[in-house]
Formats: sequence, structure tokens, C-alpha cells
Amino acid sequence: MAKNLAPDSTRRRSEKSRRAIYDAALALVGEVGYPKTTIEGIAARAGVGKQTIYRWWSSKAEVLMEAFLDLGEQASREAGQEPYAIPDTGDLAADLKAVLRATVDELKDPRFEVPSRALAAEGVVNEELGRRFVAQLLEPSLQLYVARLRAAQDAGDVRPEIDPRIALELFVSPLAQRWLQYSGPISYEYTDTLVDYALHGLAPR
Amino acid sequence: MAKNLAPDSTRRRSEKSRRAIYDAALALVGEVGYPKTTIEGIAARAGVGKQTIYRWWSSKAEVLMEAFLDLGEQASREAGQEPYAIPDTGDLAADLKAVLRATVDELKDPRFEVPSRALAAEGVVNEELGRRFVAQLLEPSLQLYVARLRAAQDAGDVRPEIDPRIALELFVSPLAQRWLQYSGPISYEYTDTLVDYALHGLAPR
Repeated sequence: MAKNLAPDSTRRRSEKSRRAIYDAALALVGEVGYPKTTIEGIAARAGVGKQTIYRWWSSKAEVLMEAFLDLGEQASREAGQEPYAIPDTGDLAADLKAVLRATVDELKDPRFEVPSRALAAEGVVNEELGRRFVAQLLEPSLQLYVARLRAAQDAGDVRPEIDPRIALELFVSPLAQRWLQYSGPISYEYTDTLVDYALHGLAPR
Repeated sequence: MAKNLAPDSTRRRSEKSRRAIYDAALALVGEVGYPKTTIEGIAARAGVGKQTIYRWWSSKAEVLMEAFLDLGEQASREAGQEPYAIPDTGDLAADLKAVLRATVDELKDPRFEVPSRALAAEGVVNEELGRRFVAQLLEPSLQLYVARLRAAQDAGDVRPEIDPRIALELFVSPLAQRWLQYSGPISYEYTDTLVDYALHGLAPR
């Protein structure tokens, strides 16, 4: 609130510093990993004083979470999507395929990939950070699928007894695992196939 | 071959050293992470000379891969399963659920969990190690599902046009992601649900 009382030039300067800090945090974690990333290192790279960072955030984890949120919003805007919704054109398969194709592009974008891998790797062995990463970054994006699958249940396109929070994992988790573990190539054709298999099942109909 | 010419006492001593080296490698990687695990550290902890390790393996990655293979075989034996096959009782859902329940147990066993997380985390940011981990440890176990799904296709329980290598990911990857990223609880009920959703699909039949 108080921020809005600041003169325009101060707000612009703050916005510029904030963006420089995000960029520095993402670059640094990608280069040296999470354990060696420090507030001091982020400040030096962003060309701001340490106190500027501590004025806005209380830890490196907080800076990084916000930097990733901002990066995700940028990516959504560039893909021409609303950041906080999965489209509902009435064609569930088409909507899921479109969002997963955009995710494939994002996972292959080095601006996203390098820092994301560093944070994800630390989350595997650091349960507190892993759970924070999930609560602040992963789960909110998974809830968009929950909302879309619930709408599909209302429309009769998904069986009513299905738990949407588990169902989404049938097409989201395979992509995540291939990306995280280098366990297979990722492509539009692959994610389209996942959606078809998940919706129609492996068993004969 | 030459090993078989050694007197029994030497073979027993070798087997004991080998097991001590595996145990030391797994304990050390779980405690200090992959980058700080060294052949010297493994040797010291196992109570053997560095040269004993270099006689059998050329790098720490090789020692660790073999130690994990050995651990996986032990876990399978303890679960009363053949290490290199998924049962085929003719009931695909039951067979997949049984194997995934055993995997849940293994993922929650600290002997397996701690070193596995350390290696998996390194694989996320170290592509060469990640691909090696996949080729030597993950992919062979996934191929067991491929074989079981092919048998199911022959029996008419899985549609013939399905690619088994992708299909298995619908139930394997969600469990892997929840475990790796702490993105949700893992239980028998959860993996049973994954199998049912994957086989029958989310859409009404």
C-alpha cells in the first residue's frame, strides 16, 4: 500500500532493482547450485546493496520462489496464455494438449531450465525446500488442471468418481519425470499421446 | 574367470570387501552428496585400501551404480520377488498393483531412500550422470513393465496400438514424481488408483 504513495521515479527504480535481483538470483542458482547461492552473491550480481534485498525478502529461498513465479508469468504471457487458467474450449483433450505443448516449450527454454533444475535438484535432498517449492510453485499450477478436470466432470467428459488431483498426474508426471531424470525425449507428439492414453485408458473399450 | 581359481578363503574375503565397499559408498553418498563422495572416502569407510577399489572399478560412478544394482536385488529378494520380472498371473491390474506396492515399500525404506535421493538429485543437474543412472538403473526396471504390457497386448488386455514404453509412465511416473519432489503422499491406495485410472481411462466408457 505505502509503495503506491512513492513518486513514480522511485517506483520505477524499485521495479528495475526487483527485476535485476530476480535475474541475478536465477542466473546464480543455475551456475553454482542452491547451497552456494547467497543473498550477498545475488546483491553483488544485481548491482544493489544487500540491504535492498533484505528490505523485500527475508531469505534466499524467498527471493528464488518469487523469481520463479515471475519467470512463469513471463513465460505464460509470451505463450499468449493467461497465467492462472487452463483454457476451456469445451474440448478437454485439445485444451490439455495445448497447455502441455506450452510446458514442453518452457522446459526446453534455457532461461527456465537451468535455474529450475538447480532448485529441483536441491528439493530432492532438502525436504523443507522441496515442500516449499511444491507449495509455492508446483501445486498452484497443478490446481489449474484440477479446475479444468472438474469442469470436464460437470460436462460429462470425465467420470464423476475420478479424483482430479490424482488424474492430472497421469499426463503431468510422465513429462516431469522425463525432464527431471533425462529418462526419455520430450516432444509435442509425446505429450499428445499421454493425454490420449490418460483419457481413453490402456485397456480395450 | 580367474576369480574362480582363487582359493575359497580369498573369494570369501573378496565378497566381504565388495559388500563393505557397496555399503560405504551408499552411506557416504547419502551423507555428503555425490560431488563430495570420493574413492578415498569410500575406501576409508569400508576399511580397505584405495587400490582394492581401483582393482574392481574405475570411478566412483561405477561403484555407486553397482552398489544400487545390488541394493535393488536385495530389496526384490526380501519382497519375495524375482529381481528381473513382473509376475504374469493373467490379471494385469493385480500384477501391476503388486509390483507398485513393493516399490512403495522400497521408496520408503531409508536404506534405499537416502542414497537414492542423493544420486537422483545429482542426476537432475549433471546430465552425464543422469543419463548413466537412467541407462544402468532406471531403464532396465522400466523394461520389465514393457514386457508385462506386451504380454497383456497379446492377451487382449491392452489395446494393440498402445506404445508400452509410454503407457507404463502413466502409473510409474506419478509415483516417481511424488517421491522425488515431495509433491504428495505415497501409499498402496494411491498406486492402486493410478493403475485403475491408467487401464480404464478418465473418460466415461
